[in-house]
Amino acid sequence: IVRREVVRVVTPGALLDEEHLSGGEPNYLVALVPGPRAAALIDDDGREPQAPTDGNAKSKSKAKGKAKAAAPLAAALAALDISSSEFVVMGCRRLEDLRAELARLSPREILAPASTHAWLRASLGPECPALTTGDSLDGAADPASLIGRVRHLYEEGGTGLALGADEAEAAATALAYAEATQPGQTLLLHRLRRHEPSRHLILDETSLRNLEIFRTLRDGQARGSLSWAVDRTQTSMGARLLRAWMGAPLLDIAAIGARQDGIAALLGESRLRAELQSRLKDVRDVVRLAARARLGTISPRQLGALRASLQAVPSLAQLLAELGTRRTDKCLPAILDLGTDLLADLCKRLEATLVDDPPAVARDGGMIRSSVDAVLAEQRELAAGGRTKLAAIESREREATGITSLKVKHNNVFGYFLEVPKAHIKKVPTNWVRKQTLVNAERYVTEELAGLEAKVLDAQTLALAREHELFEALRREVSDAGERLVTLGDALATLDVLAGLAEVAEVHDFVRPQLLDAPELEIREGRHPVVERMLGAGRFVPNDTELAAGTHGSADAARLWVITGPNMGGKSTVMRQVALIAILAHVGSFVPAASARIGLIDRVFTRVGAADDLGRGDSTFMVEMRETAQIVAQASPRSLVLLDEIGRGTATFDGLALAWAITEHLHDQVGCRTMFATHYHELCGLEARLAGVRNVHVAVHEHRGKIVFLHRVEPGPAGRSYGIQVGRLAGLPARLLRRAQRILDRLEAQERAAPSSQLD
Amino acid sequence: IVRREVVRVVTPGALLDEEHLSGGEPNYLVALVPGPRAAALIDDDGREPQAPTDGNAKSKSKAKGKAKAAAPLAAALAALDISSSEFVVMGCRRLEDLRAELARLSPREILAPASTHAWLRASLGPECPALTTGDSLDGAADPASLIGRVRHLYEEGGTGLALGADEAEAAATALAYAEATQPGQTLLLHRLRRHEPSRHLILDETSLRNLEIFRTLRDGQARGSLSWAVDRTQTSMGARLLRAWMGAPLLDIAAIGARQDGIAALLGESRLRAELQSRLKDVRDVVRLAARARLGTISPRQLGALRASLQAVPSLAQLLAELGTRRTDKCLPAILDLGTDLLADLCKRLEATLVDDPPAVARDGGMIRSSVDAVLAEQRELAAGGRTKLAAIESREREATGITSLKVKHNNVFGYFLEVPKAHIKKVPTNWVRKQTLVNAERYVTEELAGLEAKVLDAQTLALAREHELFEALRREVSDAGERLVTLGDALATLDVLAGLAEVAEVHDFVRPQLLDAPELEIREGRHPVVERMLGAGRFVPNDTELAAGTHGSADAARLWVITGPNMGGKSTVMRQVALIAILAHVGSFVPAASARIGLIDRVFTRVGAADDLGRGDSTFMVEMRETAQIVAQASPRSLVLLDEIGRGTATFDGLALAWAITEHLHDQVGCRTMFATHYHELCGLEARLAGVRNVHVAVHEHRGKIVFLHRVEPGPAGRSYGIQVGRLAGLPARLLRRAQRILDRLEAQERAAPSSQLD
Repeated sequence: IVRREVVRVVTPGALLDEEHLSGGEPNYLVALVPGPRAAALIDDDGREPQAPTDGNAKSKSKAKGKAKAAAPLAAALAALDISSSEFVVMGCRRLEDLRAELARLSPREILAPASTHAWLRASLGPECPALTTGDSLDGAADPASLIGRVRHLYEEGGTGLALGADEAEAAATALAYAEATQPGQTLLLHRLRRHEPSRHLILDETSLRNLEIFRTLRDGQARGSLSWAVDRTQTSMGARLLRAWMGAPLLDIAAIGARQDGIAALLGESRLRAELQSRLKDVRDVVRLAARARLGTISPRQLGALRASLQAVPSLAQLLAELGTRRTDKCLPAILDLGTDLLADLCKRLEATLVDDPPAVARDGGMIRSSVDAVLAEQRELAAGGRTKLAAIESREREATGITSLKVKHNNVFGYFLEVPKAHIKKVPTNWVRKQTLVNAERYVTEELAGLEAKVLDAQTLALAREHELFEALRREVSDAGERLVTLGDALATLDVLAGLAEVAEVHDFVRPQLLDAPELEIREGRHPVVERMLGAGRFVPNDTELAAGTHGSADAARLWVITGPNMGGKSTVMRQVALIAILAHVGSFVPAASARIGLIDRVFTRVGAADDLGRGDSTFMVEMRETAQIVAQASPRSLVLLDEIGRGTATFDGLALAWAITEHLHDQVGCRTMFATHYHELCGLEARLAGVRNVHVAVHEHRGKIVFLHRVEPGPAGRSYGIQVGRLAGLPARLLRRAQRILDRLEAQERAAPSSQLD
Repeated sequence: IVRREVVRVVTPGALLDEEHLSGGEPNYLVALVPGPRAAALIDDDGREPQAPTDGNAKSKSKAKGKAKAAAPLAAALAALDISSSEFVVMGCRRLEDLRAELARLSPREILAPASTHAWLRASLGPECPALTTGDSLDGAADPASLIGRVRHLYEEGGTGLALGADEAEAAATALAYAEATQPGQTLLLHRLRRHEPSRHLILDETSLRNLEIFRTLRDGQARGSLSWAVDRTQTSMGARLLRAWMGAPLLDIAAIGARQDGIAALLGESRLRAELQSRLKDVRDVVRLAARARLGTISPRQLGALRASLQAVPSLAQLLAELGTRRTDKCLPAILDLGTDLLADLCKRLEATLVDDPPAVARDGGMIRSSVDAVLAEQRELAAGGRTKLAAIESREREATGITSLKVKHNNVFGYFLEVPKAHIKKVPTNWVRKQTLVNAERYVTEELAGLEAKVLDAQTLALAREHELFEALRREVSDAGERLVTLGDALATLDVLAGLAEVAEVHDFVRPQLLDAPELEIREGRHPVVERMLGAGRFVPNDTELAAGTHGSADAARLWVITGPNMGGKSTVMRQVALIAILAHVGSFVPAASARIGLIDRVFTRVGAADDLGRGDSTFMVEMRETAQIVAQASPRSLVLLDEIGRGTATFDGLALAWAITEHLHDQVGCRTMFATHYHELCGLEARLAGVRNVHVAVHEHRGKIVFLHRVEPGPAGRSYGIQVGRLAGLPARLLRRAQRILDRLEAQERAAPSSQLD
């Protein structure tokens, strides 16, 4: 009878196997504790009420400013990745924030009260991960001790603000669930951080998707996304860190500056950077290996990978030291420092103990060097000696009996035995003991064989047992070094990300942007980082952008661009490029421009593309309006708003009226930096009426009978003859075109007679 | 030394293997002979010049009418499917016609002069098949004889008009190439037909794609297409025929009526039709099997399939006879008649000759019944007797020698031999001749064994050779019956298609449309055949449509619908449904409506969807205008034109002006039946000015705080408050909405002050 114990519970949020984990992505289990606000907002069908009162109430409470901070949380959230010891907690004020955080974290499993599942499913759509019902800590064995451990982990992290009760509960819920999946094991939890949305540029789900930060809209692939364009990391840890940085860009100019300093130090040092990156290639996922060691699931081969990683560290440190001495200030930026603990002791232990090429599993041994242990060495010698003797017995008995086909074999029932074909059994000595009769052969044992067998088996068993002891001791040492490994891993990941960003900056000609506290934005010769890559160097047409929301009355400052011009002219590319440059700047990266001054942005809003959200049964226009209503309700004077073709989903007049009113509202009430691409030429009239509005257009020329898109932004509204010009090129009859020109002239004359300024 | 001969050349257009052929699709090799017009139009890059003069020239020559027929061909085309003996030739007046025909045929390989390849690649895009350079017949061994054979094949078809020189050359080129792929074989070519585009409703590539006739726009799958919705065929032949019918609907009221008669006869006879279809399931691809027999590549198993098919025919004929007697006129419509030659003789031959379950390959024999041939029967008996004797020898010799492990074995080097383990070789009789020594055994032959072996082998060889002779004779009989099989196959395919269409009509409540010669169109309670299927019965909202192009001055007759209403309201569905119903009517099918009167349509033009054609580097708007220019140039008073959102790709004013002028042109100059869905509310003003314009809209209601699309077409323009209403539901602030309403009111007031009628 074998006693069976539950060794490990595998759930999507508690994965450890390399084959199920993606190196460059976190594997979060999220625990959700909804606040009273959420409970009130989510009805039984998981729908949020879409009453206009809600939107208005929000914008009112927002206007009051400080009243907002006092409002109860919509939900507290804890995200735990047991494979990498990441543990983060956060509070979400609004359901929109919660949705944005879930989009950013893209958890594999959400632990939440059953009442929230319908809402989660509706909100996350096809991306919704596994939902597990986890109501609260009421059912936990010792809730107080869990909460205590969580608070301790948080305090060790050393951040100032105290943990809220909801947040502590969320973290404790995640912890309890994660520990239950690993019975008898201790998780590697280095510290618990709090993620403060207010300290980050918020990229909600819509913007992440529309701006193609992590994957493209078209095919959902990484290739063609912003992260694809700037990811030159060499390690999984680096890839995950870059992803985290890009999902939560900073609002702290000093912290951004530290990252920029790191990139600047590595810029122009191509040889040294290439060497660093080449050594980083040898670094495996130290953090995840440490977590595996802690949970007892690390294999000999993985310990070998850890050894190789640690072996690469000293030369990395040396290269960094060299970098420091080559700088004029002889000083390496702190962010690039690997720290003082390079785990040389652990590396030495691994080198001494583990064989050169360790096996994939520990079961059959062969992973520990004989030199490390006298007992192991002795038993291995005995076992080896025994096997030599067996071979000697075979050839001796063949000679003695004259049975040349005699063989010494082994099976699990009799152990070692002599096998003789039927034809020869008369030649078998009488002292052999027959054990088994086959169709063509007989099997015998002898006393000598039995004795030797016992010795060989004993020695092998003893050697294996000893190996397992030594392996377990080694694993425990690695496990004990878990926190140190995580710290080193984080430093390596940071170095990796910065070296990658430096490579991108150097190869693709990025510059260091200046971040400022004023709501301005000035980009000279900005380029779209992804489109430029697709087109090839030098083929992308750069553009200047200047927006300033702060200086309300100033004559020169435009806070709202009305962009006109034909489809395919590049309106969307220009808008996206500004958003991507701004996001990269907040990430700490350099940006594709000749120069850039970027005032901190609290949130990027996008209303672009017009994909029908058929799954939810809404029309394009309803989706358009709902996204716009969210922008209107939530945008602050610090936000960057991109609007593409508002109102196209309905008839000309009402769409135009809405687009008009929305433009006025953003200009007058919100005052944020806004770019509005539109086909409503009538909106160009707003420039004359509103101080902060500027008309720009993307230039188009006719060249040798073809329409050429110059992709250049120029001041003023787009010319109106483009359409008829294209019609001519497309081969419409001259008579029809003359008539269209006449109608166009009349329409314009009518507009002149009743100009839009009368609409005040 | 084995003499190697080229047995068969495999090219994409000369496939015969079942694994490479799709049962429901033809496998055309197309030969293209460009005329001087094409040579002038296609430049070195494969681009057609887009000079407006070209479009104008066309519309002018078109206006002259008869002058057109005299114009030289753009190209002559021959399409040959050697797997099914289909052989069609056609002349294309314009490059557009050529493109449309290639889209319809979707050939696997095109044989054309190298100078046309770039144009073909550009025109067919990713769908472009293998292009083979085939310049003309100059290089052929005996061009005159090829042309003669082609003319003979065409005359056997019995159609009136003589074959043009270009057409004959195209057909001869295809024939020469196809024959070269099958050296030493004769192709099964029943007849050569000419396809007359002027006798068919033309569906060009754009309309085939936009209307999703064969595959959907979204994923390119058959599921969701019109052919998917009406294809209930049981045989590959039927599936191919339905495809051919749908690609080339008829313009001959009598021929359409014959198909309708066939469907009508099978309607309401569910039991009998189900039996017919069940028997049709047993019918394999008789036509392709006949072609394989002719080319000598038919396998015994495929002959078995042919036998099963022919066995099903008498009961099919009987069921049809029963159907005839049950009708009041006691007469089966001619189109359902299988003809007098049901190939009972060939079926009998196959039944008598072929074993019940024939092998997949002929090589090892076992396919011919012994009963069919005395020689075969005798040799088989000899071989069988020999094998029995061998077994007897083995047991006799075991007993005689006492070697129980003795075996009679066989290999290709020694033939039959006796094998004795080494231990027993002393017991071997002296008259055995040792042939081979192995490690553990010796091999011997005896005189008796050698003699017997020769007899067995001789008998087997003779039997196999005889089988091959008999099989070849049988194959030749099938091959000789090729033309008869094709005729029967065609009749079976027709029956299959009509039974399937009758099933669809009955299950999905289709009615028999009335086709007329006047340019009218009147559909009562029409439904979209595909969308209705997706939604489920009874959930689709039917709509009436009435268009009449002929009666220019009449007050009641509208030839042009201006359709307004919100996105997702169903404008596109309504337009598509009208086109699909019209196409089904011309195919001969019944249609999803309560009643339908449809005047013959020479061509369906569609300008729908707004997919950027990035591959060709054009903007949405350029594509839109180019498609529109083609419609303007080519539409006749008999055409049906669907326009969806012309002018959206540019600014409001020029887009509106173009849409306006295009509407006027189609109404005044062309006079075709037109449906124009638009967001330009201003176009609704045209109703007052142009006698043949009617405003309709798709109805939308607000219900319990949600927008409900009624999918119902109602007279008059759409209400304009929809957009602001949606904005309110989406949660835009009340203040912003009040402002939008005010702007809308002013815009409308302005329009009233300067109404569009002033634009005359």
